[in-house]
Amino acid sequence: MIVVLSGGVGAARLLRAFEGVMNRDEITAIVNVGDDLTMHGLTICPDLDTITYTLAGLNNEELGWGLTGETWRVMDELDALGGEAWFRLGDRDLATHLYRTERFARGATKSDVAAELAHRHGVRERLLPVTNDPLATIFVTDQGDLSFQEYFVRHRHGIPVHSVRFAGAEQCSPAPGVLEALREADRIVIAPSNPLISIEPLLSVPGVREELRRRRRDVIAVSPIIAGAALKGPADRLLRELGHDVSCVGVARYYREVCATIVIDELDVDRRAEIEELGLSVRTTTTIMANREHARALATEVLA
Amino acid sequence: MIVVLSGGVGAARLLRAFEGVMNRDEITAIVNVGDDLTMHGLTICPDLDTITYTLAGLNNEELGWGLTGETWRVMDELDALGGEAWFRLGDRDLATHLYRTERFARGATKSDVAAELAHRHGVRERLLPVTNDPLATIFVTDQGDLSFQEYFVRHRHGIPVHSVRFAGAEQCSPAPGVLEALREADRIVIAPSNPLISIEPLLSVPGVREELRRRRRDVIAVSPIIAGAALKGPADRLLRELGHDVSCVGVARYYREVCATIVIDELDVDRRAEIEELGLSVRTTTTIMANREHARALATEVLA
Repeated sequence: MIVVLSGGVGAARLLRAFEGVMNRDEITAIVNVGDDLTMHGLTICPDLDTITYTLAGLNNEELGWGLTGETWRVMDELDALGGEAWFRLGDRDLATHLYRTERFARGATKSDVAAELAHRHGVRERLLPVTNDPLATIFVTDQGDLSFQEYFVRHRHGIPVHSVRFAGAEQCSPAPGVLEALREADRIVIAPSNPLISIEPLLSVPGVREELRRRRRDVIAVSPIIAGAALKGPADRLLRELGHDVSCVGVARYYREVCATIVIDELDVDRRAEIEELGLSVRTTTTIMANREHARALATEVLA
Repeated sequence: MIVVLSGGVGAARLLRAFEGVMNRDEITAIVNVGDDLTMHGLTICPDLDTITYTLAGLNNEELGWGLTGETWRVMDELDALGGEAWFRLGDRDLATHLYRTERFARGATKSDVAAELAHRHGVRERLLPVTNDPLATIFVTDQGDLSFQEYFVRHRHGIPVHSVRFAGAEQCSPAPGVLEALREADRIVIAPSNPLISIEPLLSVPGVREELRRRRRDVIAVSPIIAGAALKGPADRLLRELGHDVSCVGVARYYREVCATIVIDELDVDRRAEIEELGLSVRTTTTIMANREHARALATEVLA
């Protein structure tokens, strides 16, 4: 059994890569909820949905997010009404959020809904939100405190960030199964997600960082920074703004307390010695998952 | 200035009929909210929306409810997910509910949203929800207490009703403008809506019934019962189940404290004397609004 600490797109692609090299039933993803939001009264869980859609083979490859075969009737109409339409919710995607919100109104938890939606979509991996309690990633900027989606979507991660915090982290509890999965996993993988805003919220849930420290020898991270840049999203910019090295070395330093091994890209092979000096083992392979073969190579290396 | 006490479809059609014979700016509809509901986290106001859509010329004539040119992408997907899809919300219609719910989250009232949506749709009549406070029509049945939409849509108004109550009525306040409109109106019209479940919730809001009693001489009702049957919906069945005459006489008796004049259909001309004995004046015309000419005739008679 492996556990994958997961953000959104990068984690979803890694999880899909594992399908080729191991039994899907033996994969548990512990998923970030810090970028969840309530909009138009609907509860939206972008990372859980990205992973579900991707593992169901329903992800929209052209857009890079959302569902395949998507249409935009509701959003177009909402836009015409002068409503808040900056966070684009497709018609098919909206059904997910209506489903989730109705289930919440009837007492279901985020864990329940994640399992139900995974089941409906034929996803065999176990998807666990890290917590069922409120946890919100907040960006402190010149424009005030912004929620994840305000920063990420509304401002297209284009404004300087002074700091990041996780509102509710100290009060929240790990969702059922989270700590048990971390204790029992043969291997714990930190997906190539944004360390500061996708993985850090997971670590901020009481008990998770401690369990990872205890399991450090079995924890392996995949660097989301390749040759000094992020493949996708603002990880590079944020690392710089928040005082970290924008490199796989910076990532290794960030994770070194909770992780004994890091997988870096072949392009970064010259940084190997620096990372080893930090006390981590290093594995080198292609990490871009540009095609199925590369994805399989990465998955194999992570499990080796 | 006239005020129309309004439920859904019947009221919407009468309001549209008035457009042909008077200035739209001089019409105020006070609208039932007892069948409003929260579903999938969205606040839905069926009567306000029916009236808005109809006065905007956007009502779906084939369905008899909802918007023209409607599509069902979200509901079809929700159905496939195993979600609650019995209350059909079209894609265009959903935009209304997303808009309303988001505005509520930002502190807007039902009145605000009704005015905004009317403005967006070019509706010049003033639409006032009777209250901005919670008010819910509840049907007491063998299957327990049912909300309006559970009774009306889910059970297709096909189960016996022991009684009806209006939860929240005693605590709620009239929305801004409601009592003023009733005081200042040249004429107050009770639309041919269901007396027991569309008009009664309006009367149950503190101050409304009292104001109507005071204005009784200027209040005119259009009977929704024609030749012993309702044109649409369960008004006839409910009148019978709750112990009223299923006739325009039963309607007149129901309204006699708040209304001095009733418009009955030509088909009911033989009931005229019975109504006059109750102390009401009677006007007779075609009330079915089967075409524009008939609708205009009814509107003219009501305003005469």
